[in-house]
Amino acid sequence: MDYFPPALENLVEQFAKLPGVGRKSAQRLAFHLLDQPEESARAFADAILQAKSSISCCPVCQNLAQGEGPCPICASPRRDHSVICVVADPKDVVAMERAREYQGVYHVLHGVISPMNHVGPDDLRIAQLAERVSAGGVEEVIMATNPDTEGETTAMYLSRLLKPFGVKVTRLAYGIPVGSHLEFADEATLTRAMEGRREM
Amino acid sequence: MDYFPPALENLVEQFAKLPGVGRKSAQRLAFHLLDQPEESARAFADAILQAKSSISCCPVCQNLAQGEGPCPICASPRRDHSVICVVADPKDVVAMERAREYQGVYHVLHGVISPMNHVGPDDLRIAQLAERVSAGGVEEVIMATNPDTEGETTAMYLSRLLKPFGVKVTRLAYGIPVGSHLEFADEATLTRAMEGRREM
Repeated sequence: MDYFPPALENLVEQFAKLPGVGRKSAQRLAFHLLDQPEESARAFADAILQAKSSISCCPVCQNLAQGEGPCPICASPRRDHSVICVVADPKDVVAMERAREYQGVYHVLHGVISPMNHVGPDDLRIAQLAERVSAGGVEEVIMATNPDTEGETTAMYLSRLLKPFGVKVTRLAYGIPVGSHLEFADEATLTRAMEGRREM
Repeated sequence: MDYFPPALENLVEQFAKLPGVGRKSAQRLAFHLLDQPEESARAFADAILQAKSSISCCPVCQNLAQGEGPCPICASPRRDHSVICVVADPKDVVAMERAREYQGVYHVLHGVISPMNHVGPDDLRIAQLAERVSAGGVEEVIMATNPDTEGETTAMYLSRLLKPFGVKVTRLAYGIPVGSHLEFADEATLTRAMEGRREM
């Protein structure tokens, strides 16, 4: 079943390893790259190597950052450094920043506590968070992990860990998503939305 | 809207340039690669450069090949070199080979005649085909371009070009696809299927 030259077959296999890319799509992508001029292919390869070699973690918030020292958010004097928003993943920082609402800083855990997947507190960047909070100057820690079992467990764990330091620990509000319909909301969400109702 | 480190942003953009990959998918793929070990990322980058630098065209059939000299199909003594199947694209060779029916050799045009896209006969590998046929030893040329307007035009053009050399020029049969339903076949296909009916 292998009628491609080996180098092309290898490229197809590399593409097929990516999540959500099947063998057919991988072939399409490989052929596309072959059709591109030499510089484009080189730029692609360089981008992969560059990203892999130059992206590291911010020593403060553990978010992805480039180069030495703190990331732009941690280094910004316009940010409120007394509020830390705890998220599971660098992608969650992007989502929060897109909302343009939050002015504090972040802490990226790089995962959630998940006994099923053998991920315990020591596998996450929890020690670094405890260190930041214990160093003082932090007033509030907002738990912004996902509203699922693992995200909840992680938020609970962190809440118990951090409260002794005398900081306020809060959780993002649950409720009906803006723009959605009540009839499509599941029971758990509706229950939480009722519990969290506010006076108008 | 740009909260990624530059090297990561660059990788996301490179992925987003691929056909059928939007910005969201590109982010997912870039994050996936970042999560991979150094060697995997390097293997991916190498595969791109390798494919680009080592894949060339077979000097005989113009199909994609690796290294110097004719491709494995053109070099095979078990193939019938008196029959040439003309296809538009290297992917079509793969499709034909998958059917395990054809024992002749190929000629890849690398496109079809398309005045709309400013592709004329001189932009395709037609001269090389004429050369192969005029060199003698070819008995039949099978037109296996796609059954659309451009594929038809190309097949007609080649047919007129090659017949003076005294070769038989044939066209793949049109008809109802195997396993499909008559009720879903369009009028043009049904008309062609009627025209091409054979005695049982």
